[in-house]
Amino acid sequence: MIKYPNGHYYKPETDQLTQHLKQKHHNQAVFGQRGMALEDEINASNVYYRQTQQAVVYKKPTPIQIVKVDYPKRAQAIIKEAYFRQPSTTDYNGVYRGYYLDFEAKETKNKQSFPLKNFHQHQIDHFKRCLTQQGICFVITKFVTPKRIFLYPATKLIQYWQQSQQGPKSIPLTEFETNGFEIQYSIQPILPYLTAVDQLITTSKENHREC
Amino acid sequence: MIKYPNGHYYKPETDQLTQHLKQKHHNQAVFGQRGMALEDEINASNVYYRQTQQAVVYKKPTPIQIVKVDYPKRAQAIIKEAYFRQPSTTDYNGVYRGYYLDFEAKETKNKQSFPLKNFHQHQIDHFKRCLTQQGICFVITKFVTPKRIFLYPATKLIQYWQQSQQGPKSIPLTEFETNGFEIQYSIQPILPYLTAVDQLITTSKENHREC
Repeated sequence: MIKYPNGHYYKPETDQLTQHLKQKHHNQAVFGQRGMALEDEINASNVYYRQTQQAVVYKKPTPIQIVKVDYPKRAQAIIKEAYFRQPSTTDYNGVYRGYYLDFEAKETKNKQSFPLKNFHQHQIDHFKRCLTQQGICFVITKFVTPKRIFLYPATKLIQYWQQSQQGPKSIPLTEFETNGFEIQYSIQPILPYLTAVDQLITTSKENHREC
Repeated sequence: MIKYPNGHYYKPETDQLTQHLKQKHHNQAVFGQRGMALEDEINASNVYYRQTQQAVVYKKPTPIQIVKVDYPKRAQAIIKEAYFRQPSTTDYNGVYRGYYLDFEAKETKNKQSFPLKNFHQHQIDHFKRCLTQQGICFVITKFVTPKRIFLYPATKLIQYWQQSQQGPKSIPLTEFETNGFEIQYSIQPILPYLTAVDQLITTSKENHREC
């Protein structure tokens, strides 16, 4: 364990959030924990993509409502009371070859379909706004048990979301196979999702700005 | 004052951060307080631009290192110990007409030049990486006393930053007048900076991707 100058132990942010989500959802399905592995894979890939100057993509910090801060002498400010806030956007964005990328990462233990309850209205609304601005919007979905990962276009997700008011509440695996772009694990980066982004860009060229 | 269900008073995030920065810099020039007005103007403009579907730009949440979280029964999680972390990117990013926007907002009380100490190495590095990916990168600078606001290209800022090792530690107002794009206050949005973004895009077309 590493210590801060103020004597506190360093804990990586993901660990804390895993812990937070574990406890938060201890009576529900543990979405946070399930999602964490994929998140780590994407974060590691983003570090690699930045280092090799292929893309600049970051996960956004968790929004926090700060209520009380202490300012001890000769030490850094300590937040003594704060609350987790609901994000208004998706988790990841950045720039790649002049394109604005915007995406969310989700996992499921289901084997044959991806439950739409993994997504939220504010994420759908954010995708719609970014698509209007010609952003490249998608989700990265992981089926944990068959260990298959897909980049799936936000345009398709929005269609399923709208149909789900009357129709099915999940997206079948066959739909990911048909309209998604499968990502194969690699060494460097572990999740070479930009290859799938290239495919998405190529297939949706007609939606992009004219030059 | 509005109360939370848990009995705490609601304090808008900007107020807390102003307070934080006030106390943090109480022996220095109060950068945080100086910067807050401009930040509020940009945030309000971003809300307008989102509502009118002209652009999707957000200020990123302040990154927080969480150390201790309590989970009281029947109440939301309370963060009991956390620390402000150094951001690794700039404050704002988003998408506009297919372009990735990335920028930082800063104010000065100086009348004739903008001190480079308002910027940090990590922001310069981040700009360089985003420019490589053909992002539209800039700073929005406010001279508080003459009340003049400029959009200034990150490419120019980087040049001054590199020269400042041997040369002057600030950028003269005349340079903003020459190579920046002045933003005039308006009613809706209060700071119509997208007009200046259009000018920046037009003048830097040769750097963009070929279609």
